[in-house]
Amino acid sequence: MSGPTAFARLVEYEEASPDVRAVFDDIKRTRNVPDVNNFWKALARHPDTLRRTWSTLKEVMAPGALDARTKEMLYLAVSLANGCAYCVASHERAARKQGMTEAMYAELLAIVAQACETNLLAEAYRVPLDG
Amino acid sequence: MSGPTAFARLVEYEEASPDVRAVFDDIKRTRNVPDVNNFWKALARHPDTLRRTWSTLKEVMAPGALDARTKEMLYLAVSLANGCAYCVASHERAARKQGMTEAMYAELLAIVAQACETNLLAEAYRVPLDG
Amino acid sequence: MSGPTAFARLVEYEEASPDVRAVFDDIKRTRNVPDVNNFWKALARHPDTLRRTWSTLKEVMAPGALDARTKEMLYLAVSLANGCAYCVASHERAARKQGMTEAMYAELLAIVAQACETNLLAEAYRVPLDG
Amino acid sequence: MSGPTAFARLVEYEEASPDVRAVFDDIKRTRNVPDVNNFWKALARHPDTLRRTWSTLKEVMAPGALDARTKEMLYLAVSLANGCAYCVASHERAARKQGMTEAMYAELLAIVAQACETNLLAEAYRVPLDG
Amino acid sequence: MSGPTAFARLVEYEEASPDVRAVFDDIKRTRNVPDVNNFWKALARHPDTLRRTWSTLKEVMAPGALDARTKEMLYLAVSLANGCAYCVASHERAARKQGMTEAMYAELLAIVAQACETNLLAEAYRVPLDG
Amino acid sequence: MSGPTAFARLVEYEEASPDVRAVFDDIKRTRNVPDVNNFWKALARHPDTLRRTWSTLKEVMAPGALDARTKEMLYLAVSLANGCAYCVASHERAARKQGMTEAMYAELLAIVAQACETNLLAEAYRVPLDG
Repeated sequence: MSGPTAFARLVEYEEASPDVRAVFDDIKRTRNVPDVNNFWKALARHPDTLRRTWSTLKEVMAPGALDARTKEMLYLAVSLANGCAYCVASHERAARKQGMTEAMYAELLAIVAQACETNLLAEAYRVPLDG
Repeated sequence: MSGPTAFARLVEYEEASPDVRAVFDDIKRTRNVPDVNNFWKALARHPDTLRRTWSTLKEVMAPGALDARTKEMLYLAVSLANGCAYCVASHERAARKQGMTEAMYAELLAIVAQACETNLLAEAYRVPLDG
Repeated sequence: MSGPTAFARLVEYEEASPDVRAVFDDIKRTRNVPDVNNFWKALARHPDTLRRTWSTLKEVMAPGALDARTKEMLYLAVSLANGCAYCVASHERAARKQGMTEAMYAELLAIVAQACETNLLAEAYRVPLDG
Repeated sequence: MSGPTAFARLVEYEEASPDVRAVFDDIKRTRNVPDVNNFWKALARHPDTLRRTWSTLKEVMAPGALDARTKEMLYLAVSLANGCAYCVASHERAARKQGMTEAMYAELLAIVAQACETNLLAEAYRVPLDG
Repeated sequence: MSGPTAFARLVEYEEASPDVRAVFDDIKRTRNVPDVNNFWKALARHPDTLRRTWSTLKEVMAPGALDARTKEMLYLAVSLANGCAYCVASHERAARKQGMTEAMYAELLAIVAQACETNLLAEAYRVPLDG
Repeated sequence: MSGPTAFARLVEYEEASPDVRAVFDDIKRTRNVPDVNNFWKALARHPDTLRRTWSTLKEVMAPGALDARTKEMLYLAVSLANGCAYCVASHERAARKQGMTEAMYAELLAIVAQACETNLLAEAYRVPLDG
């Protein structure tokens, strides 16, 4: 009765066009990894979107006023709120690499769950802004 | 052609029942504020939900493995992702009180916007989990 | 700094085309009300969508295996979950007309808030179906 | 091209900590079931969230102004609206146990689908509240 | 650790009731296809919802002021925005049949991703309407 | 009982920093308008996000495989699906400028409403992909 539920068409490096390869190479260099994640292979169907998405992500996630761990935890929190299972798995891994402990993750998750509930209540009642 | 768009029924302290007042008192004590926010006055229509929501929030936002500023920033990020304008205003204020600078807020916002876009793309293609 | 936030263009009976008036008349007759709600006046910009929406709604909300109060409460619960302030106000009123008490509303709200939180957690972890 | 899409890490009773076991035991006792659902095993990674979620759920779903069947149907309706496939399956089962017939489910589903559509239209036009 | 994640109960033509078969027959005739898609087989559990959904879809997708390709691309764009992987796959196929090229799809996807991001920002700040 | 509901802090040209002014100038030049929309004034609080958002939007909305009217209609459809009232108003205006007639808008709206409903049903049942 059931059937396939995952169907991203993934573009591997070997079959990729030169501009896709250029992005893949930059991702691998920047992150010091041997291969890019499936997300990028799926985006590679659309080279312009791939290029823009990576360019923005690279800029947004670079060290700045916030440290890398906080940045990854914010990404993880939003991904949890949006119910994106792939991004949750991927950014949980990245946040742990940056030092997020199990206790930190537990607190993050509790905040996300609670925020979603209070967001819902505040929106549903269109609570007026505090003076 | 237009009309009222905000219509939370707010319960003020004076008209509140004893159990609602008890929650209001605890909020004021815990946060050291002279009055509770409109969100709590709106929830006060439902004393049990008010009590449970405050009890969970108090526990979840207490100092732990994560510091107060990071906690408020996570709350703000999720509220932005959920498009809850009231919560965005309210937690932006709280995060600033805890030391979030304009530069930090700008980086947070950029991450939220980017996460929502990549969440969408990963979900829409149901990208398979990385091995 | 602020400005107009509500901007539905409402079509009043007097300015409505014959097919819009026919729908308005049927709504008034079916619900025994002197005028239609703003929702229908907003939809009247698109007569076909107005007709289809009313036709489906009339069929869906008619008494059947579920009584009118339960139906209105289900509508209210979904509207709360979707954060639609207009529909929350409108269906809260309708549910009260059908006998929903304050205590019932409080329990309904608590379920919606809790369901949204557990929905989020189950989706974010893509919890496998129970055997 | 595809790969794993379900990846909740489930905590079984045998490997659970004493406070997780205490919650599991209470769930089994309250619901009179031999084992807890996967949802609880997934939440068990975060014992505090597990405890708070179960405590709220137990209180919220207990008999009150609304009967158990109506409560389960409200939960199911919200889960459908939120597109949470796990919760839909789980609460459909629970609602049927409480007497929801196929005809009731069909009417519930029709209301959810219709509510989501009218919620969208009312929000998109920010329809002004009826006087 | 993982388990089944797809669980629509599909109703095949052979086991369908006469009114379900009538809808299936009309879908096959209208679209000139040998069998209906899984979506319709899943909806067939609820014959009234099946009938209403097909009746509306047939009317909405018929040629009118917009051509068939634009209609399918709008459907695809909304399905991407809603993160419905099944509908994305199904309407991508339909749009390609109507002449959507890879370049058109790439531009559509870029618009959807960008719209979701700016929608989020505009909502989160509740930007006042332009004069 | 009610209060302010719109609260974007808008940055006017006069008070803007040089890099914000540069973006504002480019928007005015590209679109041949005397002033930028409120959306850009709200984003101007975050100059980097403003710059990136405009840069992507300019690229994405430029003529390509899809004509300007189709692009604006896709943007409008997604904004309707996301319930972003500001973006709906803003892109409805832009789409009309590009030739969208009332009849086209009516068909677009009908598709969006229908897509959201079928997206919901397909997701809730996690309908398996067609072979």
